[in-house]
Amino acid sequence: MSKSLLVLGGSGSLGSEIVRFFKSNGWKTISVDFRKSDIAEISLTITSSNEDQMKSIENELTSQNIKVDALVCAAGGWTGGDSNSDGYLDSVKKMIDMNLYSAFGAAFLGAKLLKPNGLIVLTGSLASIKPTSFMIAYGATKAATHHIVKSLAQPDSGLPANSTAVCILPQTLDTPANRSAMAGANFNDWTPLTEVAEKLYEWSEKVDTRPTSGSLIGFETKNKSTTWAPICLFK
Amino acid sequence: MSKSLLVLGGSGSLGSEIVRFFKSNGWKTISVDFRKSDIAEISLTITSSNEDQMKSIENELTSQNIKVDALVCAAGGWTGGDSNSDGYLDSVKKMIDMNLYSAFGAAFLGAKLLKPNGLIVLTGSLASIKPTSFMIAYGATKAATHHIVKSLAQPDSGLPANSTAVCILPQTLDTPANRSAMAGANFNDWTPLTEVAEKLYEWSEKVDTRPTSGSLIGFETKNKSTTWAPICLFK
Repeated sequence: MSKSLLVLGGSGSLGSEIVRFFKSNGWKTISVDFRKSDIAEISLTITSSNEDQMKSIENELTSQNIKVDALVCAAGGWTGGDSNSDGYLDSVKKMIDMNLYSAFGAAFLGAKLLKPNGLIVLTGSLASIKPTSFMIAYGATKAATHHIVKSLAQPDSGLPANSTAVCILPQTLDTPANRSAMAGANFNDWTPLTEVAEKLYEWSEKVDTRPTSGSLIGFETKNKSTTWAPICLFK
Repeated sequence: MSKSLLVLGGSGSLGSEIVRFFKSNGWKTISVDFRKSDIAEISLTITSSNEDQMKSIENELTSQNIKVDALVCAAGGWTGGDSNSDGYLDSVKKMIDMNLYSAFGAAFLGAKLLKPNGLIVLTGSLASIKPTSFMIAYGATKAATHHIVKSLAQPDSGLPANSTAVCILPQTLDTPANRSAMAGANFNDWTPLTEVAEKLYEWSEKVDTRPTSGSLIGFETKNKSTTWAPICLFK
């Protein structure tokens, strides 16, 4: 029986690349996103990552007897601005809705739908292990995401037995949105989405390659070469 | 002219004690809370800490030409539960609404209403500098709050010139709610609210007693003796 992957945010730039990569390697793929996925075998659409929507996903997949081997939260977004910026409070709501509800929602889906020995991956931010006054809401929601993963790694976290929870902390992903927002940047210093998909696939397929549960794995690309390294947040 | 204090959550257990303490020392006090304050000179009621409500507070106080010397966010709440608990997603929403929107809202009010050389204090959580699987939503929203304070301490944070941003990280506060929830506990190990109010008053009155901006100041009480110490979160 093929293994299965659920991607929250499976229709976004990163999410659809992850879906594509796993599918091309024979995995059954499930996308949960605002938009339908043309790639995933099962595509479920939602209107938010809030309680009723997450429960409807749980109910739908449970009714189909589907459990997953890996679950990735690739949903999220970015807004900048400090505490005095125009639109600051709107940015707060956006970041909470896009980054934090999706991270908490992925944890819920992980608790309900992961098989034992499963992998759950949330998306944090390498910049957010430091203060981020110029993108205060983004940074704080990502700091919260890092904390969620730390909590999920505890033995009594609610995840199934022997789950591994990992947070990936990108520096800058090479997405179409970033290319159009920062057209003058050096794209050789951005991480190709395929490299992220490959890494998640490796961790999903080969249990012994997985980072210790609770790890925050930062990655940065310089001159087309990507370095992955665990980040120590708590002493 | 007397100095003035704004407390977001000024009608709660901690907030009302802070209002009382500052008022008894001659400060003008402003409470912003769901419930009216019987103590504060100005009591503004809100229905949430979301954008429209925070902007209405800004507009109301600006129309009265009020700026404040100190601003404390004493709003917040607690819910327990791991990622598989009944009511987990409801707890997520509660913690985001109670703890995170209030912290972000306080940052907004600080940017708009603090005088230069002002003090802004948010309320974090000592337990949340570690993973908190048994109260995953609470811990993550408090981790986000710690991050907000770190960002507010940067020079380009949007706060007025020479502001000091501090996060207080209580272990357990001696509140009526905690006494009824944990009736068998040793109350000698809980921090009296007056001690918190005294400390905030000292920092507000005497600039040279303030912690470095961006400090996370943890405190714990053992045998009626409270120890205050900065917590190092980032390396």
